[in-house]
Amino acid sequence: MTPMPHLSKIAVLGAGSWGTTFAKVLADAASGEPEGAPERIMLWARRTEIAEEITQHHTNTTYLGDIALPGRVSATDQLTTAVTGAGVVVLALPAQNLRSHLAEVRQALAPGAVVVSLIKGLERGTHLRMSEVIATELGIADDHVAVVSGPNLAMEIAREEPTASVVACRDETVAEWIAALCSARYFRPYTNTDVTGVEIAGIVKNVIALAVGICDGQQLGDNSKASVITRGLAETTRLAAALGGRLETFSGLAGLGDVVATCASPLSRNRSAGRLLGQGYSPEETTQQLTQTAEGMKSAAAVLELAHKHQVDMPIAEAVVAVLSGKLAVENIASLLLARELKAEQEGLPDEHE
Amino acid sequence: MTPMPHLSKIAVLGAGSWGTTFAKVLADAASGEPEGAPERIMLWARRTEIAEEITQHHTNTTYLGDIALPGRVSATDQLTTAVTGAGVVVLALPAQNLRSHLAEVRQALAPGAVVVSLIKGLERGTHLRMSEVIATELGIADDHVAVVSGPNLAMEIAREEPTASVVACRDETVAEWIAALCSARYFRPYTNTDVTGVEIAGIVKNVIALAVGICDGQQLGDNSKASVITRGLAETTRLAAALGGRLETFSGLAGLGDVVATCASPLSRNRSAGRLLGQGYSPEETTQQLTQTAEGMKSAAAVLELAHKHQVDMPIAEAVVAVLSGKLAVENIASLLLARELKAEQEGLPDEHE
Repeated sequence: MTPMPHLSKIAVLGAGSWGTTFAKVLADAASGEPEGAPERIMLWARRTEIAEEITQHHTNTTYLGDIALPGRVSATDQLTTAVTGAGVVVLALPAQNLRSHLAEVRQALAPGAVVVSLIKGLERGTHLRMSEVIATELGIADDHVAVVSGPNLAMEIAREEPTASVVACRDETVAEWIAALCSARYFRPYTNTDVTGVEIAGIVKNVIALAVGICDGQQLGDNSKASVITRGLAETTRLAAALGGRLETFSGLAGLGDVVATCASPLSRNRSAGRLLGQGYSPEETTQQLTQTAEGMKSAAAVLELAHKHQVDMPIAEAVVAVLSGKLAVENIASLLLARELKAEQEGLPDEHE
Repeated sequence: MTPMPHLSKIAVLGAGSWGTTFAKVLADAASGEPEGAPERIMLWARRTEIAEEITQHHTNTTYLGDIALPGRVSATDQLTTAVTGAGVVVLALPAQNLRSHLAEVRQALAPGAVVVSLIKGLERGTHLRMSEVIATELGIADDHVAVVSGPNLAMEIAREEPTASVVACRDETVAEWIAALCSARYFRPYTNTDVTGVEIAGIVKNVIALAVGICDGQQLGDNSKASVITRGLAETTRLAAALGGRLETFSGLAGLGDVVATCASPLSRNRSAGRLLGQGYSPEETTQQLTQTAEGMKSAAAVLELAHKHQVDMPIAEAVVAVLSGKLAVENIASLLLARELKAEQEGLPDEHE
């Protein structure tokens, strides 16, 4: 595709912490008025009071405290209003609700618009990645769908702490265009054409974060957690390789980088959910205690089903699913970690690697 | 080689936290009296009072608090006494002092003994890895030298928290033998024949930990630190590849695992040193404040020299060396991290990968 020469508006659907922060990044990237910068960034918030607060006060206190949003950012509670006339539509919606919103997006979507997914999740039932759901449901080609993923804790970016990220699209020109649109002083996007690898990394990352959180809850140390992260990333890579992803994506920012940031941060929702599970709370009690959704708890079973379908061994995802379904007591996580026969760290990531 | 059928004694030279902990691991591995288990584990402590405390009270309070050492562990302040009659000699000495001890080791070393290095460092001046210093100075073949490395914070292992590790030796049989000797309920070694890769990972890990510590000291967030870890591991892999190491070692426990454990833990000495540097203390003030040596501060310049010799680009090591030599103000670390042109996460680890 040829990127649109003039972009009057970018829509961001979803005004949670990541969607709102990304709108701020887009506005800050446009603030120096570089060539092709959009005039407006319009958020869609489901809740009227949040949309009004963003437009009138330039804050979103529910998700971002007292962070000030740039003047270029406004919001609406009407999805169609946000999408209409936008050359780029960014999606920051819950993974399992995405499809239900796309029919309305399709009605209003400008011809040739590029759709960018910030969503990490695998659709339950279909086992489709978000970019696949988007392309199918909107009837657009995969070179019009991009994905942003990396070590991107939203609150740190909102505070303008230096952050790197990855913009992936099958068409490198589109990836470069989106990267330019979100390149701010504190936000540094790299490009990648391996959409499958970047999405799988983001999806399974949430499941690994649950596993690391369970270790926290069980008061296991950093040695154990580092092993879980290492072996978790190895099994993620095996799954992605089976699906056509590239190995090097997993040593990059969207793979290793994202796992490390999530597992280091007390801000991660999935890790917090894991911690509660590790302390012995049930999945229901865990969901009740957290005010936001832990996507890993929803995606874990779908990830494992996808792995089984492609005959990929994923012991860490398997353990997490067993804990979530009540088939494994959290006390047995530690012994699972070390229970195997003495063996070699095998060669090549697509194989068993531990 | 054919492993010795009967092993009466293992010597561990160096009674700091890791040497003493590894002696405990060896003793606990032998406690069930598996075939070929050693009768005694003898530590060498430079300080007489530490040797006496270990032998008489089975504690090493200076380094391990009130952790109880098994009865099979004793200690001496005479290096020759420890080495004489030992079929396996484990070295846990400071990297830059290793060579000075090896002449005495050579005098007493039993023919056919295997030497195991726990040391992470590159010799200044020669740029030799520890296994190379050992083989040269003792006049033994490289199939009699093994290396143990992984996400192994000593204090956690001393507390018997579940830990995985890597035993590397060019001869797989020897690696398997050493792995069996140190396989305890809480310590799970995997084997690898890539000695170069495992050692380079351990060496550069300390330099990356310094960089992460500097970010801490500068109050940068987890996004930034995750990027430093990701790009640090990529540059480590490039160096190892240039030296003949294998890429997959770096996605394993001795690579990724060790970096993650060190960078997650407040117990890491190198990270603590980096934190002080990041707060603006000079290298001299930092060394004064820490009671133990931060090996990364000694190895960093040697690592960079080795990289230059092999024409490998290592921007993170370069930044750390520049901070240590006073050529870069710590305040400029953050902008260094994000200052590059927009570009693709390139393909293949041996190349620039960011």
